[in-house]
Amino acid sequence: MSVFTRVTEAELSAWLGDYSLGQLLELQGIASGIENTNYFVTTTNGLFVLTLFEKLSATELPFYLNLMAHLARHGIPSPSPVANRHNNFLGELNGKPACIVSRLAGKSLTQPEAEHCAAVGAMLGQMHLAGQSFSGAIDNPRGAAWRRYAAQQIRPFLSANDAALLDSEVAFHEQHDMHELPQGVVHADLFRDNVLFNGARIAGLIDFYFACNDSLLYDVAITVNDWCANADGMLDDTRTSALLAAYHKVRAFTALEKTMWPVALRAAALRFWLSRQYDLYLPRDGDMVHVHDPEQFKRILQWHIETDGDATWL
Amino acid sequence: MSVFTRVTEAELSAWLGDYSLGQLLELQGIASGIENTNYFVTTTNGLFVLTLFEKLSATELPFYLNLMAHLARHGIPSPSPVANRHNNFLGELNGKPACIVSRLAGKSLTQPEAEHCAAVGAMLGQMHLAGQSFSGAIDNPRGAAWRRYAAQQIRPFLSANDAALLDSEVAFHEQHDMHELPQGVVHADLFRDNVLFNGARIAGLIDFYFACNDSLLYDVAITVNDWCANADGMLDDTRTSALLAAYHKVRAFTALEKTMWPVALRAAALRFWLSRQYDLYLPRDGDMVHVHDPEQFKRILQWHIETDGDATWL
Repeated sequence: MSVFTRVTEAELSAWLGDYSLGQLLELQGIASGIENTNYFVTTTNGLFVLTLFEKLSATELPFYLNLMAHLARHGIPSPSPVANRHNNFLGELNGKPACIVSRLAGKSLTQPEAEHCAAVGAMLGQMHLAGQSFSGAIDNPRGAAWRRYAAQQIRPFLSANDAALLDSEVAFHEQHDMHELPQGVVHADLFRDNVLFNGARIAGLIDFYFACNDSLLYDVAITVNDWCANADGMLDDTRTSALLAAYHKVRAFTALEKTMWPVALRAAALRFWLSRQYDLYLPRDGDMVHVHDPEQFKRILQWHIETDGDATWL
Repeated sequence: MSVFTRVTEAELSAWLGDYSLGQLLELQGIASGIENTNYFVTTTNGLFVLTLFEKLSATELPFYLNLMAHLARHGIPSPSPVANRHNNFLGELNGKPACIVSRLAGKSLTQPEAEHCAAVGAMLGQMHLAGQSFSGAIDNPRGAAWRRYAAQQIRPFLSANDAALLDSEVAFHEQHDMHELPQGVVHADLFRDNVLFNGARIAGLIDFYFACNDSLLYDVAITVNDWCANADGMLDDTRTSALLAAYHKVRAFTALEKTMWPVALRAAALRFWLSRQYDLYLPRDGDMVHVHDPEQFKRILQWHIETDGDATWL
């Protein structure tokens, strides 16, 4: 249960006195999520989500809140942060930085079909284009420096085979600079659980707390690795083609992006293989343990290496 | 039919290329509205309303669009303007200033009950509080100067009795300055057709194109005159009490506001008696004729004069 900081109805009602959201009707803790405390909030003005930030600080948060507001303002179905009477998105509740955002309808899918992958590809393209006019910027906290650090930290826990794979893959990416690719704001975690569907239509993109500035192609690779991979780590042809064709229709890939696609797929797979092993072998004190299986990303990575990221889709 | 400027699907699809709203799925003209051209627009990202402005100019429009965005950002269910790739709310389509805003669910009511009036009162209070942090400002184009002008223009068309009523009422308001009352952004036209309900809950406030800076109490009076008056021009006790109590709970009236309530009710009734007569006697060339009956506002005005605006509700 991901309610690390408890909020009572009386506390929330008092806090909402600083907002124009009407009267509190219902407050309900949300079980999912491993980083923050989340509640569903219903007021006379509508449906919202309250988040108390357990790790991100008040100096880091404006980037994410302003980004969500920017995307919502551009018609991307992202959560829209609500400003208080002082015109700020960020407040404080029970000693934690806190915000309240619009609640989006829809449900995430565990078994997407090609039409869902096409919708995700098109929406990711729209998000990348809308992000081009966003003025905020932060470096990817899971970028090249983190990759070196995380690899070093988890290496002692690995089998000889896995250590060899890790070493050669880290060395491979040291040789491939992705900074020449088109850059912009990326979601960086657009997995199946972060997209809400209403039928075949996307009703919400959520969880922007890994968003940052990076290569747009890398974001596409992260998304494809999750939406289009089967349990054996192989990308499904139909879903992959559907996602990439829909993305390309919104934002066409450059020649360099086409060339670098296999590298991006491997970088994206390595990033999650690394972070999942890190969470498994080096859990932080007091972390709720929702560790995802790292093996799926090892399989995806190996498949990309074997097939050289099969770029026939681009 | 209020489609003064026709827009084809091909024209709109091309125009939407500058937005992050996905693909156009449906375009449908809206019959109501007498000032602008409106279309319902469905894209893969959701439901929107396209407006082509037939009278307001590109220099006047940012106030209204920024106000709607400000209120939506504060959790008021107002239409949320969508920004294009250049980060602007205002574009141009078929030679007219144009914008696209989120489409709000819900239906307007013709026969509101006390619970609906309470919801309107509370929402108006929330809107007034949220408006306090809005930086834009324009004077009321239907303020004191306009009142004098309109009275002069329509006077030749009136019966002797109506002219006497008009003269004495205009003179009365010259003696009563409302500028000492709490000021702010007001909707100034929150009639029954501009509030969308979803059951007893307000799902939308719409049509902000009369919004301006004025006394908050005047906005309450405009709202009460429409929501709480019966066909004979008398305010219904139950609905009036419900609306005012709910407003007061969100933003308490000051002592001066209580004193000035009868004046505000008369000023609000006079403004619509005047404008409806003006539209009736002096229609602008090419106007679509949707003239509302001025008599209802004469009855309301007369009743306020007779009862001295019965301030027992405050």
